[in-house]
Amino acid sequence: GMARIDTGRSVRCGMPEVVLAEGKEPGAFARIMLAQVKASGRCIATRVSPEHIEALQPLLPPEVRLEHREAARAIVLSTGEGPDPRGGTVAILTAGTSDIPVAEEAKLIAEEMGCEVRTAYDVGVAGIHRLFSALRDLIPADVFIVAAGREGTLPAIVAGLVDRPVIGVPVSTGYGYMGAGEAALASMLQACSVLAVVNIDAGFTAGAFAAQIAHGGRRV
Amino acid sequence: GMARIDTGRSVRCGMPEVVLAEGKEPGAFARIMLAQVKASGRCIATRVSPEHIEALQPLLPPEVRLEHREAARAIVLSTGEGPDPRGGTVAILTAGTSDIPVAEEAKLIAEEMGCEVRTAYDVGVAGIHRLFSALRDLIPADVFIVAAGREGTLPAIVAGLVDRPVIGVPVSTGYGYMGAGEAALASMLQACSVLAVVNIDAGFTAGAFAAQIAHGGRRV
Amino acid sequence: GMARIDTGRSVRCGMPEVVLAEGKEPGAFARIMLAQVKASGRCIATRVSPEHIEALQPLLPPEVRLEHREAARAIVLSTGEGPDPRGGTVAILTAGTSDIPVAEEAKLIAEEMGCEVRTAYDVGVAGIHRLFSALRDLIPADVFIVAAGREGTLPAIVAGLVDRPVIGVPVSTGYGYMGAGEAALASMLQACSVLAVVNIDAGFTAGAFAAQIAHGGRRV
Amino acid sequence: GMARIDTGRSVRCGMPEVVLAEGKEPGAFARIMLAQVKASGRCIATRVSPEHIEALQPLLPPEVRLEHREAARAIVLSTGEGPDPRGGTVAILTAGTSDIPVAEEAKLIAEEMGCEVRTAYDVGVAGIHRLFSALRDLIPADVFIVAAGREGTLPAIVAGLVDRPVIGVPVSTGYGYMGAGEAALASMLQACSVLAVVNIDAGFTAGAFAAQIAHGGRRV
Amino acid sequence: GMARIDTGRSVRCGMPEVVLAEGKEPGAFARIMLAQVKASGRCIATRVSPEHIEALQPLLPPEVRLEHREAARAIVLSTGEGPDPRGGTVAILTAGTSDIPVAEEAKLIAEEMGCEVRTAYDVGVAGIHRLFSALRDLIPADVFIVAAGREGTLPAIVAGLVDRPVIGVPVSTGYGYMGAGEAALASMLQACSVLAVVNIDAGFTAGAFAAQIAHGGRRV
Amino acid sequence: GMARIDTGRSVRCGMPEVVLAEGKEPGAFARIMLAQVKASGRCIATRVSPEHIEALQPLLPPEVRLEHREAARAIVLSTGEGPDPRGGTVAILTAGTSDIPVAEEAKLIAEEMGCEVRTAYDVGVAGIHRLFSALRDLIPADVFIVAAGREGTLPAIVAGLVDRPVIGVPVSTGYGYMGAGEAALASMLQACSVLAVVNIDAGFTAGAFAAQIAHGGRRV
Amino acid sequence: GMARIDTGRSVRCGMPEVVLAEGKEPGAFARIMLAQVKASGRCIATRVSPEHIEALQPLLPPEVRLEHREAARAIVLSTGEGPDPRGGTVAILTAGTSDIPVAEEAKLIAEEMGCEVRTAYDVGVAGIHRLFSALRDLIPADVFIVAAGREGTLPAIVAGLVDRPVIGVPVSTGYGYMGAGEAALASMLQACSVLAVVNIDAGFTAGAFAAQIAHGGRRV
Amino acid sequence: GMARIDTGRSVRCGMPEVVLAEGKEPGAFARIMLAQVKASGRCIATRVSPEHIEALQPLLPPEVRLEHREAARAIVLSTGEGPDPRGGTVAILTAGTSDIPVAEEAKLIAEEMGCEVRTAYDVGVAGIHRLFSALRDLIPADVFIVAAGREGTLPAIVAGLVDRPVIGVPVSTGYGYMGAGEAALASMLQACSVLAVVNIDAGFTAGAFAAQIAHGGRRV
Ligand SMILES: Nc1ncnc2c1ncn2[C@@H]1O[C@H](COP(=O)(O)O)[C@@H](O)[C@H]1O
Ligand SMILES: Nc1ncnc2c1ncn2[C@@H]1O[C@H](COP(=O)(O)O)[C@@H](O)[C@H]1O
Ligand SMILES: Nc1ncnc2c1ncn2[C@@H]1O[C@H](COP(=O)(O)O)[C@@H](O)[C@H]1O
Ligand SMILES: Nc1ncnc2c1ncn2[C@@H]1O[C@H](COP(=O)(O)O)[C@@H](O)[C@H]1O
Ligand SMILES: [Mg+2]
Ligand SMILES: [Mg+2]
Ligand SMILES: [Mg+2]
Ligand SMILES: [Mg+2]
Ligand SMILES: [Mg+2]
Ligand SMILES: [Mg+2]
Ligand SMILES: [Mg+2]
Ligand SMILES: [Mg+2]
Repeated sequence: GMARIDTGRSVRCGMPEVVLAEGKEPGAFARIMLAQVKASGRCIATRVSPEHIEALQPLLPPEVRLEHREAARAIVLSTGEGPDPRGGTVAILTAGTSDIPVAEEAKLIAEEMGCEVRTAYDVGVAGIHRLFSALRDLIPADVFIVAAGREGTLPAIVAGLVDRPVIGVPVSTGYGYMGAGEAALASMLQACSVLAVVNIDAGFTAGAFAAQIAHGGRRV
Repeated sequence: GMARIDTGRSVRCGMPEVVLAEGKEPGAFARIMLAQVKASGRCIATRVSPEHIEALQPLLPPEVRLEHREAARAIVLSTGEGPDPRGGTVAILTAGTSDIPVAEEAKLIAEEMGCEVRTAYDVGVAGIHRLFSALRDLIPADVFIVAAGREGTLPAIVAGLVDRPVIGVPVSTGYGYMGAGEAALASMLQACSVLAVVNIDAGFTAGAFAAQIAHGGRRV
Repeated sequence: GMARIDTGRSVRCGMPEVVLAEGKEPGAFARIMLAQVKASGRCIATRVSPEHIEALQPLLPPEVRLEHREAARAIVLSTGEGPDPRGGTVAILTAGTSDIPVAEEAKLIAEEMGCEVRTAYDVGVAGIHRLFSALRDLIPADVFIVAAGREGTLPAIVAGLVDRPVIGVPVSTGYGYMGAGEAALASMLQACSVLAVVNIDAGFTAGAFAAQIAHGGRRV
Repeated sequence: GMARIDTGRSVRCGMPEVVLAEGKEPGAFARIMLAQVKASGRCIATRVSPEHIEALQPLLPPEVRLEHREAARAIVLSTGEGPDPRGGTVAILTAGTSDIPVAEEAKLIAEEMGCEVRTAYDVGVAGIHRLFSALRDLIPADVFIVAAGREGTLPAIVAGLVDRPVIGVPVSTGYGYMGAGEAALASMLQACSVLAVVNIDAGFTAGAFAAQIAHGGRRV
Repeated sequence: GMARIDTGRSVRCGMPEVVLAEGKEPGAFARIMLAQVKASGRCIATRVSPEHIEALQPLLPPEVRLEHREAARAIVLSTGEGPDPRGGTVAILTAGTSDIPVAEEAKLIAEEMGCEVRTAYDVGVAGIHRLFSALRDLIPADVFIVAAGREGTLPAIVAGLVDRPVIGVPVSTGYGYMGAGEAALASMLQACSVLAVVNIDAGFTAGAFAAQIAHGGRRV
Repeated sequence: GMARIDTGRSVRCGMPEVVLAEGKEPGAFARIMLAQVKASGRCIATRVSPEHIEALQPLLPPEVRLEHREAARAIVLSTGEGPDPRGGTVAILTAGTSDIPVAEEAKLIAEEMGCEVRTAYDVGVAGIHRLFSALRDLIPADVFIVAAGREGTLPAIVAGLVDRPVIGVPVSTGYGYMGAGEAALASMLQACSVLAVVNIDAGFTAGAFAAQIAHGGRRV
Repeated sequence: GMARIDTGRSVRCGMPEVVLAEGKEPGAFARIMLAQVKASGRCIATRVSPEHIEALQPLLPPEVRLEHREAARAIVLSTGEGPDPRGGTVAILTAGTSDIPVAEEAKLIAEEMGCEVRTAYDVGVAGIHRLFSALRDLIPADVFIVAAGREGTLPAIVAGLVDRPVIGVPVSTGYGYMGAGEAALASMLQACSVLAVVNIDAGFTAGAFAAQIAHGGRRV
Repeated sequence: GMARIDTGRSVRCGMPEVVLAEGKEPGAFARIMLAQVKASGRCIATRVSPEHIEALQPLLPPEVRLEHREAARAIVLSTGEGPDPRGGTVAILTAGTSDIPVAEEAKLIAEEMGCEVRTAYDVGVAGIHRLFSALRDLIPADVFIVAAGREGTLPAIVAGLVDRPVIGVPVSTGYGYMGAGEAALASMLQACSVLAVVNIDAGFTAGAFAAQIAHGGRRV
């Protein structure tokens, strides 16, 4: 009973309850999740390990449904319906295949916030023609999330090609000098293109920020 | 004649021509500005020193108007009208008085991109009541820019209070450990609130990114 | 027999004997603990692993009591009574649930130094109203310890609300850029509020420093 | 008129109004100082340059007195009496002569908060006997501030000798590797002694924090 | 007479004598230059300030010719002919106009080593079509040098388009986080394209390394 | 089917398809390798773990041959012949034995690009005579790769002795201060000799870059 | 047979053959050790893991003796007598018990180089009187090695008390900010006392350097 | 009168009084120097600016002699004879000409401590034959100081050639990545050769440490 439950944020800022599992003792994690889902009917956890899920599963009452989104390393607990469609489209691109888990975390959050999400993964290594054809399908989006590791160039390139906001997500792939996402972070912050950035691997923040943009005037 | 003029970006990405004066030799700077304004009728320069303006002024033909925006450390060259109002409202807050030049740079760019801008400066040191009254006037904005130096807390606090996107701008005020904006950058990237971030002192990027959000569906 | 026992500090600086288990070979650790408890009747170890406890237990003579404070990752060996109540009240707050082990380490030390300790954990994520109600119960404290990871904002906020000394403890939760407590450390050092800081995760130092304050004039 | 005046903090947290001059444009600085002294009768500025004083002096009305504390690089504006003696004694030591300006800044703030201050400067280079004789005069103090540059050892040594709280202030003297105060900061944070730390060169924070401790139960 | 003259390297490694002026006391610099030109008939200095040239000029005997290459911040002293054409073509591109001095330093060295040099400056900001047309003229080159500041993306893009070796030169333009060339260095080292890198601003090294490649089998 | 296959690079830049196994989920890795080898008849993977190979082996159709190059921590999948000899000789040296895996990765790539490779490993610790005798056998090479950890001196020494291009590869051996290759990277970037550098442990980049040099005029 | 054996250094610089086991594949390690001991009759390995010893043991011919110095994490292979006493006394102190393995590595090397070694471990935590009594026994030494982690103060204190050379060895104990030996390294480099420093945990270098000093005029 | 004079160290540790001028206010500096020379008859100041000398000169009584050692950026005040010859020879080498001021500071201190000093400057750029001939003259020295900037390789090379202790001094010449001496420091700490290191530019420490070695058994 040490964690305090706050169900005000989803009303105040239009955002779902999201618990960062990593760094939490599995037992404490399970108790927090249960309390949240009871209080608000829906609760998401990100960066979840098998130990977290194991601690949670035996405690779940029958009315709580657990969905495991493996690609996003996330789970969703719910007692009722899914999120209301609130409108707005978010496009998510990744430079490589290693960036996909971070992209999927962003996708989950944006969908939970009622947005439509379109994705194009692993477009960064190929020649520029692959990017062009990928962008063609995404162009009606209200906002773009672009995840990239190593030198993190893709977000700046996309930002030079579209006139909607582009959010760069540095990913901790790579090795050697500044290889855990720092080179990507630095190059996105220094980009000549117009670009805003979130923390390394911060799929959650990118998804929620993009959804706020995509909502546009559509307040609940 | 070494610099190449690109007048395509304002069409492609809906953004004005903006030249970063700092780091450019004054003579080269003046030639680039002139070429840009001739090609597209309007050109902005940021982080401008007196030497840059001195080099530019004698070369200006009568039809080019020079506006010096001192508070933003910027100049605007133009041959014709101001920017078309394209719609959307941007709110800009600063934590202290030292953050104002960066905020003014953001304001100039957002206005050049056709947005209405409302500001509330120096709200960070005072008690939280000052922030509340400042926010009340800004609440209809489509997007918030919050500039802060030292520990850079204000953007996260604002993001916890509004349901529109908040862009944090770390400012290089402060002294000692990570005092040149790095502490502010780090704390904004680690914020629990949903926040996107631009480079230290990057008023230009914040303003342009905010305008892209504020435009919403209103494409030109 | 290589480690030398110093039982002078508890007299000289009013502080208990505390051994940092981490980084010590379990056998050496056990020998040091035994020697300390024999010499002074009481000895604490922090950052203890199961291997350390396993190496210690078989060696304990019957007159030595071992208390395992799991939440604080600490143990207390003693042959006699608990610490004398020396007076003074320490308040301890945490921003999230992941900060609790560090807070509990601080609590243990402050209690060992004869202070009363009151806690309010996980007050940082919720809206500001939760903090206000938490502070109400803690307000008579002589000194506040505030532990926070990620952006580490909570200590500065508390320092803006109370007129007693506030000690910030950066905690190594978080991920990505400066995520192992460095962002929190930097933002606490740059805080506009008046705040003193200890090392990342340094519950021991925070607790002992707070107890020195709480003792006030009450010298032994 | 852009800066907003906050006269609430001195009541809320028992602290005087202090303006950080460095990084403020002299004209803006002068306007802020005047507004503060008019609103609350007393106002301090730290890290003041000659340009700041020049901009301020011609604007001062006859009823405002300006005191220049050169050794502290500070000024005090006042219309009335000095600070009320609120009780408590603060001891301030420095390792070398280069640390004195930072120590003097701390002294000024502690005195402004109504404390008695005793100092012993340049005790660090000499043999340990100099430190002992210096400490003898300071021993009745409620709290110790110890400022040191280069390797920053002195605070930890003092903390091993007294049973009152010791605050370390890293100073940006030294050259070469981590010579701008970072080595001192790091060694204070890693100290085995019980020690709390403030930002590099942060005399203001050290002085105000020490005064909060020295006040003890004496609330206004 | 303290500096020792080494005229062996030009024979051993096929490289001219080059003195780094920066960091040398002007008088010492002048004596070293004179000794070198007397010993080998030709000597270059890079990163030269007006003070260096002033100290040198009065000492020059009539048979020594001084050429000031302002754009490269370099001077060439010679008693005889220019360098022998040794063959090979080096292409040099820059992303912006601020990168030109570094590019010109590289050009000077490559020419001194007997290569033909072709340049295309300021191709990075414009749309990709500008880069394509620039590359068309450079395509017969044996090796490419690409200088870029801020996020330093251009070298990787060029490396994805040509099948000859590409050398990235990070340039210390930019501001804010890692703005003095570090972001560019990091992104070039992490590039997915095949790229080798030299020190920040190291036009000399890039030029000499490129010339070694361009020489191919043509040993002297 | 999420990864997109690009078989254009081998034509465009004369380089084989190389997949970085590290950081890829084994199943995804296996699917990508299979798709690549089907599309282009040949595919290399570097930084391969046993888990990657285990996931791949059961999926291999009979016509695909898997070669495990243990010393290079790499595998080669192929359906047909080996690489065409395209000409050019690459010399590879290492300072110690711990640098050999990185050197072997470079060797594999250069051979795959049709070069002859000669090696001399562990020449750095011994006296300079060992280096001389090693260089004698390598001297006809078109280009030198020199891999070195700890202080990373060997590349600069080799560059002072030969007149062909030298590529330094910092290796992440060593411990303590900047021991994971950073000291080697820094000293190679600061070398007085003419040297280009690749990322820490980047055998692939060094090998491919060297092969581009060794090809000289011999375009396919 | 890839590693090359160098038996010249022991003659040239008066130093034994020492192999750094860490980072070497166990099989390669065993082959190198065998070759060394065969060539010179004696060979030491430091930072040895159980896997290294396991790989070595079955290969040892009967005439080679293996001595496992556990406290130093080292082994000594030899076919003949121990090292000749060459004279000179080295004193080794540690601040805590965690520093002992590094101290023991230094001791082993100094003894192998023919010096007498005297030690005093764990003198840093206790009051200064413990240090004084420890120094009394060590005072005739020709040189002092002082190993310390965390804030690394002890070497500077010793250097202020003796008139022989003092070598500081930073040790990677500690946690939090710069806790892996960097704080200790920084504070030793910035020390006001006269002190030379070696790499973090570099017992080998400290021992060999001290032995060179202790030898004094006694060349072999 | 704020600085306290300590004339005990010269007796205790065999070292002269040395004041670090840099960072001291000129007036305070002059007072400290005068007090020192009066108390002990001899006093040195390092890193002296013209302002420091100007403040000092008018205050000097006739019996005090001021010697300005420009090459060492130092001054010596004395009332009597020079230092007693205490024996021992120190060799000092530099890699380039920019390292000479640091070398001269070391030379001054070693001479003040009664040693004979031999120097060989600027031996690092030339081929290895220059180093060999330089070493021949220095070989009888008891200890070697080697100062080097940029990649800082020379100390390790010297240490591989002589059997006496070698002290590396990193120098803050160079530019770009870690160009202010950090690359040199890192490479010296990581050197495979046996080497001890002092702070960047710390000629004082190197000279005093070398003199302690050179004194050998010769205690005063
Ligand atoms: N993957 C994630 N990255 C960043 N923030 C997260 C992530 N998952 C959850 N959060 C946020 O982190 C905050 C702190 O969470 P907690 O420690 O669970 O109270 C929550 O309010 C979440 O909104
Ligand atoms: N020397 C100083 N160091 C740290 N903080 C200071 C200093 N001087 C003033 N401050 C604080 O910095 C805050 C920001 O000040 P300002 O930018 O003047 O609104 C003020 O509330 C002061 O209390
Ligand atoms: N701009 C430059 N960048 C890097 N190295 C240079 C530069 N200019 C000269 N050098 C080299 O730096 C070495 C050291 O020079 P010096 O200190 O003049 O003896 C010389 O051998 C030059 O080849
Ligand atoms: N150039 C220098 N580098 C390092 N330490 C120095 C230097 N010059 C003087 N010192 C030492 O620094 C200590 C601090 O000096 P001070 O601040 O003058 O009391 C003195 O005891 C000197 O021995
Ligand atoms: Mg891919
Ligand atoms: Mg303010
Ligand atoms: Mg919580
Ligand atoms: Mg002094
Ligand atoms: Mg341009
Ligand atoms: Mg070897
Ligand atoms: Mg101990
Ligand atoms: Mg030279």
